[in-house]
Amino acid sequence: MEAENATQASAAIDFDVDHLSHRVLTVAYMNREAFDETVATGRACYFSRSRKKLWRKGEESGNFQIVHEIRIDCDADAVVVAVEQRGDGAACHEGYESCFFRKLDGGEWKIVDQRKVDPAKYGPNYGHQKKSAG
Amino acid sequence: MEAENATQASAAIDFDVDHLSHRVLTVAYMNREAFDETVATGRACYFSRSRKKLWRKGEESGNFQIVHEIRIDCDADAVVVAVEQRGDGAACHEGYESCFFRKLDGGEWKIVDQRKVDPAKYGPNYGHQKKSAG
Repeated sequence: MEAENATQASAAIDFDVDHLSHRVLTVAYMNREAFDETVATGRACYFSRSRKKLWRKGEESGNFQIVHEIRIDCDADAVVVAVEQRGDGAACHEGYESCFFRKLDGGEWKIVDQRKVDPAKYGPNYGHQKKSAG
Repeated sequence: MEAENATQASAAIDFDVDHLSHRVLTVAYMNREAFDETVATGRACYFSRSRKKLWRKGEESGNFQIVHEIRIDCDADAVVVAVEQRGDGAACHEGYESCFFRKLDGGEWKIVDQRKVDPAKYGPNYGHQKKSAG
């Protein structure tokens, strides 16, 4: 199968996982251009549907991601990108390693991870474009 | 935060991961009812958007999933469900452990996993409802 099929869906779901622990870090969208740039540069690049432009992960914060492997699912509308998280080690705009820092516990969502960094470090506008706005 | 927020989005993306290896197994959708059933029964239940009904993972094949942990992301529109894959150990309707059995290699998607089971075992109609139809 040609790699072109990666983005035959209008918006392929991308999720990044840590290349060693396999922990799910973030969920985002890729269009064809974002996918191509990710492959060409070896750094994760998404497409922001709200801003209608490429979103080069880490361009504001330095928290970019080095790509180790890309997998596609059975019906070719989702990819898993195994990455090495650089910068402060925070893939989440809230400063956590992973966007999935809360778990269900007794009927409530409880924060169970420690922040890697205070996102205020990256300036007052950082984080206003949340990842799902992608 | 109340668990209700899990499905404040019209369709929360659900990722199943193996509870030990953390490998991503499948991607599917949950509505409020599917989420509640998953929590209540401890078995993964999705919502099929094409069939407009609950999709109890494994109800045809016996490949059901025991839930170990549920996490939600920063903007509460995606969940990661850590599961123990039962039955033949195949989360994918094509008989693989994971739907992500192909990786990008030299510009092409190559199958790099071994099938756990021939899905023909589950009858002629099995697999016609692919997971993304969910």
